[in-house]
Amino acid sequence: MGPAVGPAKNAPAAPHAVDRLAALLAEDLAAVDALIHQHMESPVGVIPNLAAHLIDAGGKRIRPLITLAAARLLGGGGDGPRKLAAAVEFIHSATLLHDDVVDVSSMRRGKKSANVLWGNSASVLVGDFLFARSFNLMVETGDIQVLDILARAASVIAEGEVMQLAAANDADTTRERYMAIIAAKTAALFAAAGKAGAVAAGRPGPEAAALETYGRELGLAFQLVDDALDYGGMSQTMGKNAGDDFKEGKVTLPVVFARDAGDEGERAFWRRAMGGERTDDDFHRAVALLKRHNAIGRTIDAARAHAQTARDALNFLPANAYREALEALPDFVVERAY
Amino acid sequence: MGPAVGPAKNAPAAPHAVDRLAALLAEDLAAVDALIHQHMESPVGVIPNLAAHLIDAGGKRIRPLITLAAARLLGGGGDGPRKLAAAVEFIHSATLLHDDVVDVSSMRRGKKSANVLWGNSASVLVGDFLFARSFNLMVETGDIQVLDILARAASVIAEGEVMQLAAANDADTTRERYMAIIAAKTAALFAAAGKAGAVAAGRPGPEAAALETYGRELGLAFQLVDDALDYGGMSQTMGKNAGDDFKEGKVTLPVVFARDAGDEGERAFWRRAMGGERTDDDFHRAVALLKRHNAIGRTIDAARAHAQTARDALNFLPANAYREALEALPDFVVERAY
Repeated sequence: MGPAVGPAKNAPAAPHAVDRLAALLAEDLAAVDALIHQHMESPVGVIPNLAAHLIDAGGKRIRPLITLAAARLLGGGGDGPRKLAAAVEFIHSATLLHDDVVDVSSMRRGKKSANVLWGNSASVLVGDFLFARSFNLMVETGDIQVLDILARAASVIAEGEVMQLAAANDADTTRERYMAIIAAKTAALFAAAGKAGAVAAGRPGPEAAALETYGRELGLAFQLVDDALDYGGMSQTMGKNAGDDFKEGKVTLPVVFARDAGDEGERAFWRRAMGGERTDDDFHRAVALLKRHNAIGRTIDAARAHAQTARDALNFLPANAYREALEALPDFVVERAY
Repeated sequence: MGPAVGPAKNAPAAPHAVDRLAALLAEDLAAVDALIHQHMESPVGVIPNLAAHLIDAGGKRIRPLITLAAARLLGGGGDGPRKLAAAVEFIHSATLLHDDVVDVSSMRRGKKSANVLWGNSASVLVGDFLFARSFNLMVETGDIQVLDILARAASVIAEGEVMQLAAANDADTTRERYMAIIAAKTAALFAAAGKAGAVAAGRPGPEAAALETYGRELGLAFQLVDDALDYGGMSQTMGKNAGDDFKEGKVTLPVVFARDAGDEGERAFWRRAMGGERTDDDFHRAVALLKRHNAIGRTIDAARAHAQTARDALNFLPANAYREALEALPDFVVERAY
């Protein structure tokens, strides 16, 4: 991937692209929210309580928005896309609950995470419940093709999570391996969200392929930016979860860039810091090394390239408000880094 | 439920009923095994390694056998029932992996459990993978009705596990609550295994209902016997996992019987022992109290009643070798207690 790509670099920021998409799909989104709450109900009180703690904490619903917009863009109507959108959010939520157990996280969406409040066991089991309920929702659509798409995505996500676990503390992780991990753990669900929306609209052919590409590339951009933000992003402002990847020994693209561009002493630092014990001082040194090698800038450039591929994938689709809103999302995702 | 029920009490032991069923379905079972191994493949090596450790450890495959026998009993042929049987085993396997994390178990099927060998995180994530792959297998059948049955079962199982977690260390757990827990965590999958087999054979009506009842009642008998064996069963011989429920503060039916029949001092013992700290001496006292009140015998009587209901559910189905083999299973399940 080259350094700077296309017109997006100097394009005006589109900070509210998700909000605009949500406004355009307000009625659908309200219906999805109702479906979500209806399907997380259970006589076992812990389940709706724990699920609501996560799901009502103000996530951006970006994945279900993609499903809804993909379907509407292609003229798909009815309840099917809403059920799929809710299913996609459930898969995402189940993944977050299990992620936080695996990563021993204590914060999520600005609140204490469910594993801290209810314990690891409850988080694992309620994750299982949400995952099962996502399939209940898909079954309700009666569409075996979308079940196929999302069931495949679900197993790829799990593969990605295991890959990431196996790569933790492996200081030699390559760019290729990193990309394979984020393609599986993050981009697969974005891709499935777009493809499933198109299929639900009765367009399983090139339109579904286009929206699958859109989702995958957007997902890659999204994760690249997330990983840049873990080191403060372009502004070097440390957000609420900054430093988590470093603490967990996750070798993300910024580290790959800085490590590979560093001299022998720097590479020794990365080997020690990513491979074993890490101190707070190490984190500050890591941030300084990323800066020296423009590793964040290069990561954002990579994200920008994927964002452009995402936008381009929509070129031949009907030009309407939904397409326009989807086209604005990739820029928004990249602008988060600034 | 009354104390002793029906002719089964003095019926000859049927120790090899599972083996006989497996022999009758040998070809199907070999195909299921191939499907299982094919669908647990992944380029991410940890996944097939961890999955094989559990799945190849010599489980009895009782749930997939029920699916296969149900389908064949009703004349269902082809690959569908085999895929469903593999899916059922995957759901069961995923549940075991997550259970062992939740229960902090260290042994499973006579070997070190996966969470001990690969860690909790890998067990959680590979469980997720197997769960997703179970849906891939169901999708391959193209039958949305069986997807509905098994997706519902999966969410009920998770509810049961959360119920059990919430009831742990609650010394006042009632018989009703205990039965609700085991109906969800164990019997729901047995029921779905039977029902899905019938539906795959094109018999979604009374035959499916009969095999669902068969599965549910067999599953209840199975779990009751398991819980009796946790205190040594009728022979008072402590098996490899004996005492686990007591250690984990799980109030099972034997404890409910002994507690409710005990005097004030005994009830105080149960309150303390199940509600909080437990020593090895406490376990020995618990076993003695269960004996004093015939709590194991009464639990086995309850299991026997469910076993008979299971058998009776098959009465109106075609009389053939599959039905005969299914009819022998409930006795086998109960005889395990001796």
